[in-house]
Amino acid sequence: MKMFFHYNWMVREEWYQWCEGISEEELLKKRTGGVGSILQTLFHIADVEWSWIRLLKGEDDFQESFDEYRSLSKVRELDAQFRTEVEEFVANWDTSMEHKRLHFTEKDGTVVTDQWGEVMRHIIAHEIHHIGQLSVWARELGKEPVSANLVGRGLADS
Amino acid sequence: MKMFFHYNWMVREEWYQWCEGISEEELLKKRTGGVGSILQTLFHIADVEWSWIRLLKGEDDFQESFDEYRSLSKVRELDAQFRTEVEEFVANWDTSMEHKRLHFTEKDGTVVTDQWGEVMRHIIAHEIHHIGQLSVWARELGKEPVSANLVGRGLADS
Repeated sequence: MKMFFHYNWMVREEWYQWCEGISEEELLKKRTGGVGSILQTLFHIADVEWSWIRLLKGEDDFQESFDEYRSLSKVRELDAQFRTEVEEFVANWDTSMEHKRLHFTEKDGTVVTDQWGEVMRHIIAHEIHHIGQLSVWARELGKEPVSANLVGRGLADS
Repeated sequence: MKMFFHYNWMVREEWYQWCEGISEEELLKKRTGGVGSILQTLFHIADVEWSWIRLLKGEDDFQESFDEYRSLSKVRELDAQFRTEVEEFVANWDTSMEHKRLHFTEKDGTVVTDQWGEVMRHIIAHEIHHIGQLSVWARELGKEPVSANLVGRGLADS
């Protein structure tokens, strides 16, 4: 579990660096698929990660809209602010937490139950999926995307 | 580890079903990013998964080209053929295998060492990343992509 979170944070940081070479107009441009723009995807990844961790902790999740974060520096700041709490939760994760139950009510009133282990994997897969979308948009911009390789990053030694 | 493989196989099967509603021409059409077409992406996912498992087992990997598999039914057949072996390996996975070493030589002669746990996670992330690319191409076709949600699939109970 932990290695996947470290992988995602490393890849996300590389995407932030990649974004430094792209104009703000291109970062905010509406694109086909996903949540619609490169920057909003990165915002969405950080938002969703932190919001689920907050749910697991039984605390309020993030409700603000992207409208307040329409620049690379604002998204990075928000992500850094969230990260401390997410990192702490991930660092303290152990397998005894796998089958704990999270109950919550969806917008339509349905009560949903997920196991904590599912939620953690959902967060991981959610980011990798959206990063795959960024890689297509990068090519559409004529740019090489960040590598998605998990091997070769020294993750097993960290 | 096992839950992620089950997630990927479930999502992959849903993409095969999704493909049934798309013409072969669209499935084979060259697209921007990734490995280039919807069908070649699914072929690539099955190929890469099986090839890494074969490397871990110390056996020959898959060397055939996509040219021989340019139809949905052929890709599904190949995937089913590979799956038996991959499923067996995944079913027998345990944490004692995490730090085993895989050594192999890359095309340029470099000798690379990866830990088995990294390789297994690489296979998982590899598929999710490419599925993210399919989701953009689906929207470009005006079609709703397969859901990438990991929660809500009953995976923790299986």
